[in-house]
Amino acid sequence: MQATKHISSAQNPLIKKILLLKEKSRERKKTGLFILEGLLELQLSIGAQYEIETVLYCEDILESSESSGILKSFHSDQLISVTTEIYKKLAYRDTTEGVIAIAKSKDHQLSTLKFETKNPLILIAEAPEKPGNIGALLRTADAANLDAVLIANPKTDLYNPNIIRSSVGCLFSRNVKMGSTTEIISYLKKEGFQIFCAALSASKDYTTVNFTAPTAIVVGTEHSGLSEEWLKNSTQNIIIPMEGQIDSMNVSVSAAILIFEAKRQRKINK
Amino acid sequence: MQATKHISSAQNPLIKKILLLKEKSRERKKTGLFILEGLLELQLSIGAQYEIETVLYCEDILESSESSGILKSFHSDQLISVTTEIYKKLAYRDTTEGVIAIAKSKDHQLSTLKFETKNPLILIAEAPEKPGNIGALLRTADAANLDAVLIANPKTDLYNPNIIRSSVGCLFSRNVKMGSTTEIISYLKKEGFQIFCAALSASKDYTTVNFTAPTAIVVGTEHSGLSEEWLKNSTQNIIIPMEGQIDSMNVSVSAAILIFEAKRQRKINK
Repeated sequence: MQATKHISSAQNPLIKKILLLKEKSRERKKTGLFILEGLLELQLSIGAQYEIETVLYCEDILESSESSGILKSFHSDQLISVTTEIYKKLAYRDTTEGVIAIAKSKDHQLSTLKFETKNPLILIAEAPEKPGNIGALLRTADAANLDAVLIANPKTDLYNPNIIRSSVGCLFSRNVKMGSTTEIISYLKKEGFQIFCAALSASKDYTTVNFTAPTAIVVGTEHSGLSEEWLKNSTQNIIIPMEGQIDSMNVSVSAAILIFEAKRQRKINK
Repeated sequence: MQATKHISSAQNPLIKKILLLKEKSRERKKTGLFILEGLLELQLSIGAQYEIETVLYCEDILESSESSGILKSFHSDQLISVTTEIYKKLAYRDTTEGVIAIAKSKDHQLSTLKFETKNPLILIAEAPEKPGNIGALLRTADAANLDAVLIANPKTDLYNPNIIRSSVGCLFSRNVKMGSTTEIISYLKKEGFQIFCAALSASKDYTTVNFTAPTAIVVGTEHSGLSEEWLKNSTQNIIIPMEGQIDSMNVSVSAAILIFEAKRQRKINK
């Protein structure tokens, strides 16, 4: 591993480009590129066949042999070393092990969705707004090894740095697709999925429904729940009975409870 | 509702006192007071017999009749109206409905723990550090109507404004106690609780243990898990099998999965 280039000036055009890609969704869309940082994130993106254009590293932060190891897999002209000052200017966190990469985004259109199993369990989030919630949902989806996560009527660019960060890189490890609510419902019906929508009224206790057939668990936003379109088209609306004084739970917590009940049933049923 | 006092200067000693109480844990400990803001938080604290010393309100923000209603339950000399400028200086959020209160903290010593049911289900968090995680745990505890939440070896003052905020006021609605890990383990053993510790090794799948007897579910930090003292003294260490590429989940998500599995078993068993 030996970079052919070194950058020590914040005025360097590449540094400016990286800052733009981090901050502007429009820039990411225009160029088809995004920024990721951290060793785990880099490993997961490579594992998921993301194309990495350039890796910037900071020798003084890059400590572990693991980090140096991964850099060896790149051509020297893909590597650029930067000063600690520049790295800190670019990095989101203090703990990102000295690596930042420019990568090519993937196509997340619904039409490209494929499953590796015959009995998929998937999560659908309608119009999630907070990047932190999307990241948490992806992290849970990874832990449960869900077959896909679909974002219906997306409000946020998937490559928002806060999503990447809060998903701890699970954005890369998961099968994530996007589409309109109408498109996704039509897809699910065509493919014979059960649609279980998390709702507050006219709903069955989630522990009493059967998640063992091909299933989509659908969650809305904390603020306004799911749209009528989802609620009308569901196989069954389901609820986590709340027994406290506050009638709400964080969306990633609710989704996790539903997903892991589905996993439990499927384990017993094997 | 008619305040006898009005404050429009940021130099007012009460305003300075409130800012100190918000920012300094030491100040809260010294005075036994803390600050809460928001209508729901005020309602929940009153419902839980918290003693409210003073309520500040901002007429221009205070819109709903519900807010005005709750202010009527106070003596006029407990009420102070403030300007929008002062309110914004004090408030954490934009959406706190124009009410901020100074309240007396309660005693959270383990020795004061009492249960209203004969078969309690409780959550224990050892040394949680992030206020946001503690708040999320309390919110889940409320939704599940847990009989108590115990913080073992606490690292954070319970009345940290970030805990109050992220718990959406559930700090007040719950039976929250604190003590050392040693004290709590001794208490649980004396009272005949099953102790299920969330752990990564030498653990049973959480869906295979029986949560229907008096049960304590114990979780550690995301970073370092539970101490040896907990792991050695558990009835059984349990695990949520992770099948993804990232071997970790947010602590409030893990706790919710365990708690709601316990709830499911108890519902069937009724």
